[in-house]
Amino acid sequence: MIKAGIIGGTGYTGVELLRLLHNHNMVDVVAISSRSLDGKRVDSIFPSLVGHSNLIFSLPNDAVLDTCDVIFFATPHGVAMEGAGAFIKKGIKVIDLGADFRITDPIEWSKWYGMKHTQASLLDSAVYGLPETNRAQVKEAMLLANPGCYPTAVQLALKPLITNKLISLSGIVADCKSGVSGAGRGANQAMLLCETSESLKSYGVGGHRHYPEIKQALEILAGEEVNFTFVPHLVPMIRGMQATIYVDLLDENVDIRPYFIDTYSNEPFVKILDEGVYPETRSVKSSNFCQISMQKIPNSNKLVIMSVIDNLVKGASGQAVQNMNIMFGLDETSGLTSIGLLP
Amino acid sequence: MIKAGIIGGTGYTGVELLRLLHNHNMVDVVAISSRSLDGKRVDSIFPSLVGHSNLIFSLPNDAVLDTCDVIFFATPHGVAMEGAGAFIKKGIKVIDLGADFRITDPIEWSKWYGMKHTQASLLDSAVYGLPETNRAQVKEAMLLANPGCYPTAVQLALKPLITNKLISLSGIVADCKSGVSGAGRGANQAMLLCETSESLKSYGVGGHRHYPEIKQALEILAGEEVNFTFVPHLVPMIRGMQATIYVDLLDENVDIRPYFIDTYSNEPFVKILDEGVYPETRSVKSSNFCQISMQKIPNSNKLVIMSVIDNLVKGASGQAVQNMNIMFGLDETSGLTSIGLLP
Amino acid sequence: MIKAGIIGGTGYTGVELLRLLHNHNMVDVVAISSRSLDGKRVDSIFPSLVGHSNLIFSLPNDAVLDTCDVIFFATPHGVAMEGAGAFIKKGIKVIDLGADFRITDPIEWSKWYGMKHTQASLLDSAVYGLPETNRAQVKEAMLLANPGCYPTAVQLALKPLITNKLISLSGIVADCKSGVSGAGRGANQAMLLCETSESLKSYGVGGHRHYPEIKQALEILAGEEVNFTFVPHLVPMIRGMQATIYVDLLDENVDIRPYFIDTYSNEPFVKILDEGVYPETRSVKSSNFCQISMQKIPNSNKLVIMSVIDNLVKGASGQAVQNMNIMFGLDETSGLTSIGLLP
Amino acid sequence: MIKAGIIGGTGYTGVELLRLLHNHNMVDVVAISSRSLDGKRVDSIFPSLVGHSNLIFSLPNDAVLDTCDVIFFATPHGVAMEGAGAFIKKGIKVIDLGADFRITDPIEWSKWYGMKHTQASLLDSAVYGLPETNRAQVKEAMLLANPGCYPTAVQLALKPLITNKLISLSGIVADCKSGVSGAGRGANQAMLLCETSESLKSYGVGGHRHYPEIKQALEILAGEEVNFTFVPHLVPMIRGMQATIYVDLLDENVDIRPYFIDTYSNEPFVKILDEGVYPETRSVKSSNFCQISMQKIPNSNKLVIMSVIDNLVKGASGQAVQNMNIMFGLDETSGLTSIGLLP
Repeated sequence: MIKAGIIGGTGYTGVELLRLLHNHNMVDVVAISSRSLDGKRVDSIFPSLVGHSNLIFSLPNDAVLDTCDVIFFATPHGVAMEGAGAFIKKGIKVIDLGADFRITDPIEWSKWYGMKHTQASLLDSAVYGLPETNRAQVKEAMLLANPGCYPTAVQLALKPLITNKLISLSGIVADCKSGVSGAGRGANQAMLLCETSESLKSYGVGGHRHYPEIKQALEILAGEEVNFTFVPHLVPMIRGMQATIYVDLLDENVDIRPYFIDTYSNEPFVKILDEGVYPETRSVKSSNFCQISMQKIPNSNKLVIMSVIDNLVKGASGQAVQNMNIMFGLDETSGLTSIGLLP
Repeated sequence: MIKAGIIGGTGYTGVELLRLLHNHNMVDVVAISSRSLDGKRVDSIFPSLVGHSNLIFSLPNDAVLDTCDVIFFATPHGVAMEGAGAFIKKGIKVIDLGADFRITDPIEWSKWYGMKHTQASLLDSAVYGLPETNRAQVKEAMLLANPGCYPTAVQLALKPLITNKLISLSGIVADCKSGVSGAGRGANQAMLLCETSESLKSYGVGGHRHYPEIKQALEILAGEEVNFTFVPHLVPMIRGMQATIYVDLLDENVDIRPYFIDTYSNEPFVKILDEGVYPETRSVKSSNFCQISMQKIPNSNKLVIMSVIDNLVKGASGQAVQNMNIMFGLDETSGLTSIGLLP
Repeated sequence: MIKAGIIGGTGYTGVELLRLLHNHNMVDVVAISSRSLDGKRVDSIFPSLVGHSNLIFSLPNDAVLDTCDVIFFATPHGVAMEGAGAFIKKGIKVIDLGADFRITDPIEWSKWYGMKHTQASLLDSAVYGLPETNRAQVKEAMLLANPGCYPTAVQLALKPLITNKLISLSGIVADCKSGVSGAGRGANQAMLLCETSESLKSYGVGGHRHYPEIKQALEILAGEEVNFTFVPHLVPMIRGMQATIYVDLLDENVDIRPYFIDTYSNEPFVKILDEGVYPETRSVKSSNFCQISMQKIPNSNKLVIMSVIDNLVKGASGQAVQNMNIMFGLDETSGLTSIGLLP
Repeated sequence: MIKAGIIGGTGYTGVELLRLLHNHNMVDVVAISSRSLDGKRVDSIFPSLVGHSNLIFSLPNDAVLDTCDVIFFATPHGVAMEGAGAFIKKGIKVIDLGADFRITDPIEWSKWYGMKHTQASLLDSAVYGLPETNRAQVKEAMLLANPGCYPTAVQLALKPLITNKLISLSGIVADCKSGVSGAGRGANQAMLLCETSESLKSYGVGGHRHYPEIKQALEILAGEEVNFTFVPHLVPMIRGMQATIYVDLLDENVDIRPYFIDTYSNEPFVKILDEGVYPETRSVKSSNFCQISMQKIPNSNKLVIMSVIDNLVKGASGQAVQNMNIMFGLDETSGLTSIGLLP
């Protein structure tokens, strides 16, 4: 059994890790830390765990964490940056669900996250964990940067087009929509039910932290500069994310669909929907799947790609488990085979 | 492996059975029938199944159904009544998620369901499948009547009080609240998002079909007549059900809590919450658990009991799987151990 | 024109007052105060006001407030208690949407609100403003205590039964359901969309601040002690409130309906629905109406009464405007005649 | 007083007309027709009207309709086409909330609406009623084609850019999001709460009926061909619509904001938000306003425009009332001055 610890398990990605790892028959969660909830039963904070877990929140310096095989950081940015090194030195693998190791350039990272990046050498060793583009490196990683939710949905939608050089790399538009759980569990007036229910809005239009992460990833795929516009929207639902992406085909007569099918035919978690079927975010609610459709716009070179994920699963904790499976040589789908909740 | 068939799998209890049985490592669903969807892929109707299932809807006379070990009827009332007998004669166990075999008196049944009950002898052999009150009989059942959602929530809340003769049996009030999925998947103006969202209402106040089922079950527990008032409410959410029950204690000084703890200490799916903690329906979303709290009202003999379930799981398909496990001598929790989805 | 000021207008009752008074052709809102938002445009905080209002938040000591004819306090408890007196001395009428003057006994008030009541003599002069029970006194009030939302829904449902001595005064059960806006606009983890959406729960079961207010009001109606149980529930919707009330009829053969019709035939804002029609909270969304139904339970002396209001209108700001109309000798319905928003 | 009749008042635009016209002190609704509900009280179908209206549904041949000054058709497409002429001949003005007279080319119309257009000469006389682009013609109209919801949101967002020749006319992307009420009140499985709540999806990606209407309108503004992509999305909320529009500026150094301010400075219902403020659909819930923001994307020539409306008000019934006001020489804002409902 793999012994896992979770640091900062008081938010939605923390409880989602607990839910998913509970279904994983090769992993035991042996410790979960929270400064503010130290000593409290986990099921007193997350009542879905009543009857499932006897875990108690401990402090981040809990010695049990040092006995783990893997540590998940589900913390605000800056925390994993400071804490990861000590575990790695002890041979413990680290998976950071936060943003500390996603941007390879520490200067760029600092610009978006508002603090100095103090661990440039760790950053060099970090592997960006989108298995569908980076599986071989993930296998070898000691420090894994789990991708952001928007970057996951956007990259999976664009990979077949960029790697096969089918689209213009200037003028890509990614209009993205996310449920409210992406904003986390902190007390925040703007995320009250009365502020977000029965409404939709754009946010971060002038610049969102996931922008540089997406740009970096797309440029690695393309091998050249990629110019795109990214506008996220807040949707009145708990979970779910859709990226609706508009691109210009270089040749509007090319049949695009086979490229998607080829790219993902062996991927366990990416499904290309039948012609004319568009995804719904609920189809992947609670599951680690990404569903993708595409639609050519008649009489134009415009292609629309739609990809949906559960922002807390494939967009966060599920992808972290998938990465863990790869890092430990397990079946990549272990603990992730459940069917999504519908309705 | 147990071979299972589902008749009438186009509604929410049907897809929920598929989700739960997919997690069950001792069961294969080999057929699912629907007159209207014959020949269609199941994952074209329920896109959460894409990548999980290759099942195709067949007609209810599909020969594969005769090769099953168990048949689940997830049909409107009247269908299982006519179809169950033929399977039972072939030695195939039948679990009816509908209401055809829940009321022991066929005359009473006809009054509430508006059609004649044609299978009085089958009705005699049917076992009412609330494991927490009836486990021994469930074990022997060939024909199992899976309880209604409201009856499940109400019986679990009242069992410790009635069997221990702690409350007055006249004047019980059950104010119940359900998510909209209880109304099914049929096209129904009253269940449109625009009609049900952002609103709450009572319905069936003058008489609801679950009333005689609850009354029969409580009177079996009590061994005498029970007089109660049952008012269901429609709540703007997909899943979830709470019964808030008001009873008069015979002795207001008795400590009630230990009776609940004793009654359910060995029950895998019923959890008594800590003193002063009240349940939320979301705590059991997607899980087969029932969470129960109670609160004595100061300066009175009134006790309030709150019980929550997921109406599609413990209130329908999950309980059906639990009953199947018992009927086949499996671990009662097989396929039902997942943690509920939160948030 | 009546000049109105609002103190503490940063919450939902504040913006609702602005919305309703904007529709009132006899009232000008000349000042709105907020310590935290001093100097900010009101429409920058409540973007529904863009194009409707040029108001700017000022400090509570804004001299303009002293030029008003009426001051609305939309503040947390304790604020109006300290501030009301100075206005009244200047001949300015005060309407407190909070709880400071609702409970006539300052000792009882302190018990529930956790602070000393410092203004006993003001309390003596305050009028409890439920027009349907207290119109004559409201007409003369200088200091008006606007009722709570639950107390409004419950009193309107019970008034015909209590004043006509039709029910037992022991054992009344009020199972109440409210949208989330009742919890206010403060940053509060428990009221995040991800915590309250897709869920229902009871709260305050052991004792809620509206309990003593309801008890006091019912006992005034009855002229004797009233024993009742009050359990509020949080419903995943923004606005709306239903009280489902269970009472024992003294004579189960009495026809109850005419008493409701008689009681409310001249009331502009209380409507008794047709026999067999049950209210929905959305029917009064955004309006000052209360809709009431009742249903006798067959073969018992139990009667169920259902009353619905918009908790922010008839349960707060709309009732405050109705009271203002009465206090200033205006048509009681001025500014309150709009049809509710459906869907 | 203007006497108004409504034909086909059983849907959401019908009840919204009743709500808005009730607030209009120059209009009396004297008749409302529905074949299926003939003889029923309107408030028995729309319980928000209890206490506000004594109207009874009549048949579409109700003689009272001939006494009206204006007839609103709130009917499925095809009905106004056949019925409008008879009223116009009698000198009664007609406002069609449906699509029958929006597309000037009957062949194009037939292609999208699947039936022959039988009234080519009426079509010639029809005026497209977006007051912000067409006010002079609306003033003279006998037959008014009320715009669709998406076309309203998109045109208002693009008018300043197109009329001032600031953007490329090829490659415009309109990613639009709508609440569920746009799908109407018919019984429709796909619009059940359990199917649409907690989910988002694209629809009509390959071609939506509002596409030719938008194209025609933009080309009239531009005086030349306009090439754009339109993808609508269904959002889990009742009301509200946002168009997020991506355009390429011809000169990326031009300051765009003043053009928007100039265009709309005298428009009562279009508001340009402050720099850096993005609209939320809830800000215009229940009101006839459109709020617009724009954001230049750094280091590119891309501009994002966001416009929000209430699809049932400015996107349907409110705009119809605005047009009626213009057609009858009334103050354009009569009956439309209420503040939107927040929260």
